[in-house]
Amino acid sequence: MGRDYSPESRGGHLMQQYFIEQVGQLGAYVELAKDDAHHLLRVMRAKVGEEVTLVDSKQQVFRAKLNQIEGKIATLQLIEQIEGQSTELSVQVTIATGLSKHDKLDWVVQKGTELGMFAFMPITLQRDVVKWTGQKISQRQERLQKIAKEAAEQSHRQRIPQVHLLHSFKEVLAASAAYTHCLVAYEEVAKAGQHEYLNQALHNFTSGDSVLCVFGSEGGLTEDEVSQLKEHGFETITLGPRILRTETAPLYLLSCISFVTEMTGKKDA
Amino acid sequence: MGRDYSPESRGGHLMQQYFIEQVGQLGAYVELAKDDAHHLLRVMRAKVGEEVTLVDSKQQVFRAKLNQIEGKIATLQLIEQIEGQSTELSVQVTIATGLSKHDKLDWVVQKGTELGMFAFMPITLQRDVVKWTGQKISQRQERLQKIAKEAAEQSHRQRIPQVHLLHSFKEVLAASAAYTHCLVAYEEVAKAGQHEYLNQALHNFTSGDSVLCVFGSEGGLTEDEVSQLKEHGFETITLGPRILRTETAPLYLLSCISFVTEMTGKKDA
Repeated sequence: MGRDYSPESRGGHLMQQYFIEQVGQLGAYVELAKDDAHHLLRVMRAKVGEEVTLVDSKQQVFRAKLNQIEGKIATLQLIEQIEGQSTELSVQVTIATGLSKHDKLDWVVQKGTELGMFAFMPITLQRDVVKWTGQKISQRQERLQKIAKEAAEQSHRQRIPQVHLLHSFKEVLAASAAYTHCLVAYEEVAKAGQHEYLNQALHNFTSGDSVLCVFGSEGGLTEDEVSQLKEHGFETITLGPRILRTETAPLYLLSCISFVTEMTGKKDA
Repeated sequence: MGRDYSPESRGGHLMQQYFIEQVGQLGAYVELAKDDAHHLLRVMRAKVGEEVTLVDSKQQVFRAKLNQIEGKIATLQLIEQIEGQSTELSVQVTIATGLSKHDKLDWVVQKGTELGMFAFMPITLQRDVVKWTGQKISQRQERLQKIAKEAAEQSHRQRIPQVHLLHSFKEVLAASAAYTHCLVAYEEVAKAGQHEYLNQALHNFTSGDSVLCVFGSEGGLTEDEVSQLKEHGFETITLGPRILRTETAPLYLLSCISFVTEMTGKKDA
């Protein structure tokens, strides 16, 4: 799951991006975080005078020049503020999925970040094969948060998606009240051929809305879980006639949201 | 990249699907291919009398019952023809990408198959870091074809996407004449904010059309490659404001094509 835009592989035509925690000021000098300095100096092999893109805590984007290298510390100067198109989706989409085997959640977080996901919420479902307990809960959250940060840098996002700690199913139901729209992707609905639900849901989105979408793990959602979600105001959607794997379904949804809100000239959502 | 719908993980509510090479006849007995028999008997641990879905060479779908197990040979009887919604996209989308490191092409083929890809064409580009030569060309094709078959079974496709042998760039240009629409995903266009191109292209698709879309590898396409593609009638498209990785971009395109042609009630394309 590493970053793979090394100098050889990028063709050199797109500047590397990093996030900084402070608010940027033109002319100011900033130190990169330890991981980012390692990436810039060791992986990218940057030299003094080379330029990168920095995004500050207010989602401002700057062109910055590598000013000084002292051991593992990289200091850059902010030399120009870049005013461009936002790379953030106009609706805030939180992807909630059950726990999966192997590195599937790593992929969902990496690809979801590329596709504009606002936040990721791992959840406990009845048919999960995998369980997280004790220290594993925070360890997994930290790992996924690191993947989200690196993917946000590579895809030139203006913010890092938040990775939540593991939520129990009850906590998901309680949390849902805070979202403008709550969706659940449910395969049984797909069989009934009710594909218009997704299109209807997407056209109800307005800029600034928050969306929570729940996906099953490999085992799918139980009827009981779907019933409880519906009682809490979740709408069921389908994601096409083919059976998508648990790690593919969220990427399909995010791509459709991007298409409708960013690619069709529909300005409002 | 294995199949992971084991009995525990599926919740048991969706029948396993396999392809057979012959044309199916109600009541007929068929033997599963060796790999599929292994999967059904060893991984799924199926017993005589259990049912699966079989898709024949004419894309006909049957409910079939496991009739006999003899060592590694599984014989099934076709007991009902299932008339349902097609799981094939109405446009035939061939995804052509440069060669990538690690198992990225495995992922593109697996996920692309889930999302309805018609065929996959690995191509040689100037900035590829990876080269396939000699025996590796057919070995990689065979590996990717196997992944496509397994993904087609899991996603309940009615056909297995064809994986082509490696094409040189000149061969891609020559092959393009056979497609109704030729597209190239090009990052430089994204910077110019010309996102309407994708929407325009998708709305030109009509049922039965064939589409070839070329994607770069990690290094992206060179200006020279893009020029040559344009001279051969390729239209440039963008895939949203974020920088997508080489393995994510084709999945975004396929999701958008599915959305427009399968989910919006637009019957014709």
